[in-house]
Amino acid sequence: MAFQRTGGRAADQLRPVRITRGFTIHAEGSVLIEFGQTRVLCTASVEEKVPPHKRGSGEGWVTAEYGMLPRATHTRGDREAARGKQSGRTQEIQRLIGRSLRAVFDLKKLGERTIHLDCDVLQADGGTRTAAITGAFVAAQDAVTKLMTTGKLAHSPITGPVAAISVGIVEGTPLLDLEYVEDVDCDTDMNVVMTGAGHYVEVQGTAEGVAFTRAEMDQLLRLAEQGIAELVSMQSKALAA
Amino acid sequence: MAFQRTGGRAADQLRPVRITRGFTIHAEGSVLIEFGQTRVLCTASVEEKVPPHKRGSGEGWVTAEYGMLPRATHTRGDREAARGKQSGRTQEIQRLIGRSLRAVFDLKKLGERTIHLDCDVLQADGGTRTAAITGAFVAAQDAVTKLMTTGKLAHSPITGPVAAISVGIVEGTPLLDLEYVEDVDCDTDMNVVMTGAGHYVEVQGTAEGVAFTRAEMDQLLRLAEQGIAELVSMQSKALAA
Amino acid sequence: MAFQRTGGRAADQLRPVRITRGFTIHAEGSVLIEFGQTRVLCTASVEEKVPPHKRGSGEGWVTAEYGMLPRATHTRGDREAARGKQSGRTQEIQRLIGRSLRAVFDLKKLGERTIHLDCDVLQADGGTRTAAITGAFVAAQDAVTKLMTTGKLAHSPITGPVAAISVGIVEGTPLLDLEYVEDVDCDTDMNVVMTGAGHYVEVQGTAEGVAFTRAEMDQLLRLAEQGIAELVSMQSKALAA
Amino acid sequence: MAFQRTGGRAADQLRPVRITRGFTIHAEGSVLIEFGQTRVLCTASVEEKVPPHKRGSGEGWVTAEYGMLPRATHTRGDREAARGKQSGRTQEIQRLIGRSLRAVFDLKKLGERTIHLDCDVLQADGGTRTAAITGAFVAAQDAVTKLMTTGKLAHSPITGPVAAISVGIVEGTPLLDLEYVEDVDCDTDMNVVMTGAGHYVEVQGTAEGVAFTRAEMDQLLRLAEQGIAELVSMQSKALAA
Amino acid sequence: MAFQRTGGRAADQLRPVRITRGFTIHAEGSVLIEFGQTRVLCTASVEEKVPPHKRGSGEGWVTAEYGMLPRATHTRGDREAARGKQSGRTQEIQRLIGRSLRAVFDLKKLGERTIHLDCDVLQADGGTRTAAITGAFVAAQDAVTKLMTTGKLAHSPITGPVAAISVGIVEGTPLLDLEYVEDVDCDTDMNVVMTGAGHYVEVQGTAEGVAFTRAEMDQLLRLAEQGIAELVSMQSKALAA
Amino acid sequence: MAFQRTGGRAADQLRPVRITRGFTIHAEGSVLIEFGQTRVLCTASVEEKVPPHKRGSGEGWVTAEYGMLPRATHTRGDREAARGKQSGRTQEIQRLIGRSLRAVFDLKKLGERTIHLDCDVLQADGGTRTAAITGAFVAAQDAVTKLMTTGKLAHSPITGPVAAISVGIVEGTPLLDLEYVEDVDCDTDMNVVMTGAGHYVEVQGTAEGVAFTRAEMDQLLRLAEQGIAELVSMQSKALAA
Repeated sequence: MAFQRTGGRAADQLRPVRITRGFTIHAEGSVLIEFGQTRVLCTASVEEKVPPHKRGSGEGWVTAEYGMLPRATHTRGDREAARGKQSGRTQEIQRLIGRSLRAVFDLKKLGERTIHLDCDVLQADGGTRTAAITGAFVAAQDAVTKLMTTGKLAHSPITGPVAAISVGIVEGTPLLDLEYVEDVDCDTDMNVVMTGAGHYVEVQGTAEGVAFTRAEMDQLLRLAEQGIAELVSMQSKALAA
Repeated sequence: MAFQRTGGRAADQLRPVRITRGFTIHAEGSVLIEFGQTRVLCTASVEEKVPPHKRGSGEGWVTAEYGMLPRATHTRGDREAARGKQSGRTQEIQRLIGRSLRAVFDLKKLGERTIHLDCDVLQADGGTRTAAITGAFVAAQDAVTKLMTTGKLAHSPITGPVAAISVGIVEGTPLLDLEYVEDVDCDTDMNVVMTGAGHYVEVQGTAEGVAFTRAEMDQLLRLAEQGIAELVSMQSKALAA
Repeated sequence: MAFQRTGGRAADQLRPVRITRGFTIHAEGSVLIEFGQTRVLCTASVEEKVPPHKRGSGEGWVTAEYGMLPRATHTRGDREAARGKQSGRTQEIQRLIGRSLRAVFDLKKLGERTIHLDCDVLQADGGTRTAAITGAFVAAQDAVTKLMTTGKLAHSPITGPVAAISVGIVEGTPLLDLEYVEDVDCDTDMNVVMTGAGHYVEVQGTAEGVAFTRAEMDQLLRLAEQGIAELVSMQSKALAA
Repeated sequence: MAFQRTGGRAADQLRPVRITRGFTIHAEGSVLIEFGQTRVLCTASVEEKVPPHKRGSGEGWVTAEYGMLPRATHTRGDREAARGKQSGRTQEIQRLIGRSLRAVFDLKKLGERTIHLDCDVLQADGGTRTAAITGAFVAAQDAVTKLMTTGKLAHSPITGPVAAISVGIVEGTPLLDLEYVEDVDCDTDMNVVMTGAGHYVEVQGTAEGVAFTRAEMDQLLRLAEQGIAELVSMQSKALAA
Repeated sequence: MAFQRTGGRAADQLRPVRITRGFTIHAEGSVLIEFGQTRVLCTASVEEKVPPHKRGSGEGWVTAEYGMLPRATHTRGDREAARGKQSGRTQEIQRLIGRSLRAVFDLKKLGERTIHLDCDVLQADGGTRTAAITGAFVAAQDAVTKLMTTGKLAHSPITGPVAAISVGIVEGTPLLDLEYVEDVDCDTDMNVVMTGAGHYVEVQGTAEGVAFTRAEMDQLLRLAEQGIAELVSMQSKALAA
Repeated sequence: MAFQRTGGRAADQLRPVRITRGFTIHAEGSVLIEFGQTRVLCTASVEEKVPPHKRGSGEGWVTAEYGMLPRATHTRGDREAARGKQSGRTQEIQRLIGRSLRAVFDLKKLGERTIHLDCDVLQADGGTRTAAITGAFVAAQDAVTKLMTTGKLAHSPITGPVAAISVGIVEGTPLLDLEYVEDVDCDTDMNVVMTGAGHYVEVQGTAEGVAFTRAEMDQLLRLAEQGIAELVSMQSKALAA
């Protein structure tokens, strides 16, 4: 028989997702997103200038940073600021978040300004990068709405929603939205980022143990597609609230 | 007439204080403390070893780290992990928190283990270091209680409560518990850390503009003493809940 | 009509691949691999100890580092050693190489030793990470053979070959093994790592411009599968030489 | 009976203070200050530009850096330049020196230039930060005098003298100007910075062991006030020489 | 009897020298130089701007960086980019290469542009810095020729050739062009850099064991002079090819 | 006519040299050495352990660090501790000092302990590295004497004196012991380190402008030899005092 999930969750079931807008007061967009016990604070900050490689281009920029509070995890991790550098994992994740969000931005329409997305994990239980992308989109949308409301932008530079989910094979069973204990155990781990139209922005699959077959990949992609569709609908509901 | 405070707060009045225990699930102690709009997450993590200068001493260690999320403030600040070093201000604050907490710990009774206090500011509106100290004490108490409940400690190494508050002179008026706009404006800014018994652990007074007189200092110390007594009582209530 | 490739290369054709073993004299394995104008020096160094997280486990470790000479590229890039840190891109690539090689190693059979794979790009023209993985496997195999010849290992810890290739969609055409000008232009860029048995070790697809569809991904995966089969056969020939 | 001080010094007595102006030849102000065996070289360097946050403001800036030669102390300490970062203690001290000096500067009158105060400890025996502040004032005064003599400034931006002293409670006795062995032993350690008019610029009191009472603080503040009055008079004499 | 050299090489004999121009395709000058088993890739990159200290001077700049692949040596060395800093040895060598090349450049004639010389050791067997200087000259000449061919320079800024060689005393015998095993063993090690005219640009002699006499120095200088004359002639032949 | 030196100094004349032993109280050896206006504080610190590469070897180690106070020079330089790294020049100099001192130490006789030589420039006017070596020898001798007096060493590990001087060609005239204005102007700059027996430990000659001839080198070496003989005699006098 297949792997038993926490709380009797089905293999193709997301954890309870909660999206809280306006979680903090200063940022132009501020969203606490929860995928089960995973909690990520995503803020969008608008800065009226662009990095050097965009200066004078008439285009804007969207970029992301990712961090984890030292005790967001089961055992305390080093504080990256104290160690004096970000780990390879942190850099990989923040590059992924940045690319994913840029995929739904028309940078020309944004004008010469930067949106900084800060995704800080308050509590980790697997899936922090996918929660971060999904939450960062909502924060970015709020920041853009503010730019439009205050007359700084006439047309939205956002071309549609983007969301992300993890899928994996644990003890032979393909599962949607892995929590920490599942992630530790899994043979294959895949993070998928898709647009609202169901197209792929990023696919990152890794065989932790045994290499995976094409058939397994197809199963995982199907699960991910379904999960992302649900997330996009939740983003939409949260933004309409 | 004197300076007008937000929401008609009296000069000797604390902002609403809220102490939420168990804010996150992994840490041995996890407290969200709010002084008005200032929100600091304080976690206490127990590690069963000590830093080199304590090895073999039979004594434990209590230490603190402090951080601020990039958009905890009105305008986004650089992420210290990305910049590759902690600012002088950050180091000063985390050293203060560490000393303050050690003042109420009998390190011999703690045994050869370390309590790490991580104080991360989710939202800043003045007084983050005093909120951090006040919240870190509650988190530390929870961690110690857990050590006692699980039989790792027979006697509590905590000798009593510790709390902290800021006081300052704004436009000639001595004020308790400065919020950000008051802090920016103030001539004198003082952070006071006291034990439950009303004794001083730290006093750090700085003249931002004009140097202050002995009479002014006496007024500030009286305000602080009263504010800390209230905070200690709130800590006690929160721990009894 | 479709995109015209350099030298009239077909869409599903690899660039000329050259694998030179024993390129330098000191390393246990030393391979210069060329994918067209891309040239990567891959060395395998055996160290008779393991990193801290493996000490006492009886298991070995396989790890990789990646670098690019400052003028391997069209315009000179900063030297990472001089700048004082490795870029996020460099870290991402070296983590990918390390995971890919570990996928074909039985770390228990390796014993408590480390194989360091250093992949240094002498000349870049697209596909440096895939050339690095493909060449690193050959260097690793040479190092293992040396360990067996000298009696340090009785059984090979290598479970089979691993190789990698890039695929992408340029102006609507799916292409195998992108060179630099194609990479710059492409809408979708995917790096695929597979075992000799045709199973996936890593799949990393990124939409640079427009998000890609499931049908496009399937085309790309097919191209990659075919290209990797050819590379595995070339690795085998080179090792037999 | 009370604690016995080196050389029969009284509890309220300063160590012999020596202020040598023109100790080195290049700096606009260069002062060797000695508090007993503590020797600090304080130089004031004038730079005809300001840091970014003051550019275009018409105001100047006064800033300080602090260092300790590796063998200024009983046992050799690491060289901070070799370790690649300044300790939290160093940063705390140099921030304190900077704030203390700015307290007696009218930055508008200074014009858009910076005075850098470098305080380097050649020999340490307690009280290095208070000696540094007291000596830095004399060096700053010399640099300002030079700016006036050369016609670069018409009016002095200095509003009055500033000096600093440490006080502490050792074995129950309040003592003025702690030397190293007293500092190590003390229960409470307080650094006080005051203007020539007897007003407070900084008060930093720390309970090393037992928390201190209000009555103790009052005793310490009285001692400090008296010591600083003596130091201000010595600064004045040195500057008149 | 005197020290026996590898392959019966005479005391005053260079190792086989090979100079391969155009070793890589992107750089304006790209030379693989081999002194026996020592192999250094020297690239010259032209950048149409100068560092801050030369801006607006009408003069150009010539600078060098040096690196060693981790497994260029008998046992693997740390990657400097991963460690986050260049060793003192690396910095010393790259400063030497830069000064040596500037000695044969008329920076006014170069115009406001920079030539970056990157010397990367692919395989080390003693004499990497002297091979680097000798090869960098050829790469620099190729880059200058390109600037002249493309009409960017009317007159060559190069005043003549420069080359370098090591000499040393091993077991009492003065030897030319030390290989690794000789270098490890030698009492005195000297690197000499000379122009084509036979004048000194740099002389760096170090007694590893016993201090050396004036007579020994004279012997070493004579050997070096002869070796450099041969190298200059090989550079000339390579450039004529 | 030849170059005019400050104070009518002859071309082959040293600046006034002053060696003050016991300049600071904590170090085992502490020497202020002055070459005219150049003043360097050299301390020798004994540590009863050795660096990793000497552990268990029965041998000791001698190492040096070099620093310059920010305003030791005409215009203020950055503080290396604040910048977070030592310059290439600093590293080059401290490596030279370390090698020079090790040349007169029998490390076996020193036993498994380290002598740290810290050379800090209080005031710079040319020749800081040669003053540092000459002063460091006196400090090292004092530290060794202390080890012998306290019975930690039976036999001195010092094999003889070592001293250093700079020589150079300024406007065609070979000069001994260059001061700053001469150093800036000179065509050739050479630092020579010799033992008391008149043998070479280090020779580092650099053509700043025009390459130098063998005849010029011979003149410079003669000047240096004479200057070092004088310095060795002064060291001896200072140690006898």
